[in-house]
Amino acid sequence: MTVGDLGEFGVVNRITARLPQGAAVMLGPGDDAAVMSAPDGRVVVSTDLLLEGRHFRRDWSGGYDVGRKAAAQNLADVAAMGATPTSIVVGLGIPADLPLDWLDALTDGFRDECATVGASVAGGDVTRCDLVVLGVTALGDLHGRAPVLRSGARPGQVVAVAGRLGYAAAGWALLEAGVPADGPALREAVAGHRRPCPPYAMGPVAAGLGATAMLDVSDGLLQDLGHIAEASGVRVELDPEAFAVGEPVAAAAKELGADPLEWVLTGGEDHALAAVFPADVSLPASWQVVGRVSEGEGVVVRGREVGRRGWDHFR
Amino acid sequence: MTVGDLGEFGVVNRITARLPQGAAVMLGPGDDAAVMSAPDGRVVVSTDLLLEGRHFRRDWSGGYDVGRKAAAQNLADVAAMGATPTSIVVGLGIPADLPLDWLDALTDGFRDECATVGASVAGGDVTRCDLVVLGVTALGDLHGRAPVLRSGARPGQVVAVAGRLGYAAAGWALLEAGVPADGPALREAVAGHRRPCPPYAMGPVAAGLGATAMLDVSDGLLQDLGHIAEASGVRVELDPEAFAVGEPVAAAAKELGADPLEWVLTGGEDHALAAVFPADVSLPASWQVVGRVSEGEGVVVRGREVGRRGWDHFR
Repeated sequence: MTVGDLGEFGVVNRITARLPQGAAVMLGPGDDAAVMSAPDGRVVVSTDLLLEGRHFRRDWSGGYDVGRKAAAQNLADVAAMGATPTSIVVGLGIPADLPLDWLDALTDGFRDECATVGASVAGGDVTRCDLVVLGVTALGDLHGRAPVLRSGARPGQVVAVAGRLGYAAAGWALLEAGVPADGPALREAVAGHRRPCPPYAMGPVAAGLGATAMLDVSDGLLQDLGHIAEASGVRVELDPEAFAVGEPVAAAAKELGADPLEWVLTGGEDHALAAVFPADVSLPASWQVVGRVSEGEGVVVRGREVGRRGWDHFR
Repeated sequence: MTVGDLGEFGVVNRITARLPQGAAVMLGPGDDAAVMSAPDGRVVVSTDLLLEGRHFRRDWSGGYDVGRKAAAQNLADVAAMGATPTSIVVGLGIPADLPLDWLDALTDGFRDECATVGASVAGGDVTRCDLVVLGVTALGDLHGRAPVLRSGARPGQVVAVAGRLGYAAAGWALLEAGVPADGPALREAVAGHRRPCPPYAMGPVAAGLGATAMLDVSDGLLQDLGHIAEASGVRVELDPEAFAVGEPVAAAAKELGADPLEWVLTGGEDHALAAVFPADVSLPASWQVVGRVSEGEGVVVRGREVGRRGWDHFR
């Protein structure tokens, strides 16, 4: 059975039947719009477009992985403001010959990634497209706190990261090289490309600990910290020896003869959180101090100036 | 100059420089997420995906028209809940060879359509795509009122419409037939395809007048009223003589030998509002009573049962 066999309204009904609605959803799918609770009097909103062939390949990732990744990418943006995600809405472009099994898996991926943070898929739109196109928008609640921007970093403060770095890049490199993922470490790297694991809870935790700047690492740590450096008018200095290179990243680098630190510093799509804290902060174990903020501009790795290596969609 | 000449961050800066931010935007473009004011404690959210070749053609519509239409489609969904739109966020997929003039016009179209309701383009995402793809999400505020759903229509109540019907379908038919739009009436029909004029303010007005059900007409009046009939468990009876056929629709029908009422009843994309009111309602002139609600199911036109004619994306 394919999407075309079911028709638009059949597809919509099939999707919504798989989606439980949490308490923050005052009106879920089925009307012109959803209504979400926003008890804080403010709402955090972030949107991203994911395209087959550019952000994922259907021969490399199943529907479930794509759904989890698409949701994760947006939920991480909300967490990076120090907020708790409450819901996503999804604009879905799909081919008529898309198997219903793939659509069901995609839906379940969205649902399950949202469930990890207590959020719901509160609404959406389905249209026909030759490629799978996902327009995902996430909403979140700040619980009375100020949002953590990119512009608050000050000289003397420390830079820390929470979550994985380099996994998605290592997994992508393995898939691109056609290297079979033998053994748990390589399999975990490939899984890291298919499905990021952002440390969502660390966003509000960082805000509570007084983080002065934060973002999620989507284009590569060096490039993304460059945004903090620019917005804050400071220099970010990283200590390359402070990074704990994950075993999957190290194994993939060994397999391909690559430099694992390159993936850690420039690989995107893991959606780790990078934040700046006051120097006297006491951080929980999920956060790893990797550098400090100084006067100046740009991002340097142990005294060496580096370019803004990372992903540019048009270069 | 094209998008590719500028690169991703240049494009983002160019877009955001053209976008003023209204008072409801607490944090606009440039961070991981935007922060919107939601004084009501609830937020209305609706999302749609618009694709080149399916929802618009670049040889038939300029960037400015596409931006206005894409914004209108989502702002109308928010108005159809009885809410006031506050902002949109846009996921934008564009080819590297897209001229910057077209991108500027698109941005201005989004900006100007939002400005008609006092809303802002509060954020977005840009990615490369072979086609122009727009993922638009609109947010809105209910000002303390209950949202107007599709499920509240009751027998004995009246059905009314505000805004244009059949214009977009007539314009599309003229473009498809390659008929030159000579004269103001035909030009207005073609403009109706390129740029809908939803009666946004009538959404909150209808809610204030006690509307029991409402939606915006995106797939055709008969099909969309079918959603109200189904959600409310009622029959909708329309009086075909109650419809004032617009001069542009009549002129296009004459030119093409078509039935203008067919476009009025089944044409989509004008984003008129259709609502159900208590029988004793006193409606302002923008609303036109076109039928009534009775026991039963489905939509009938003067006693004749009609199918759910309208747009299905997969049929």
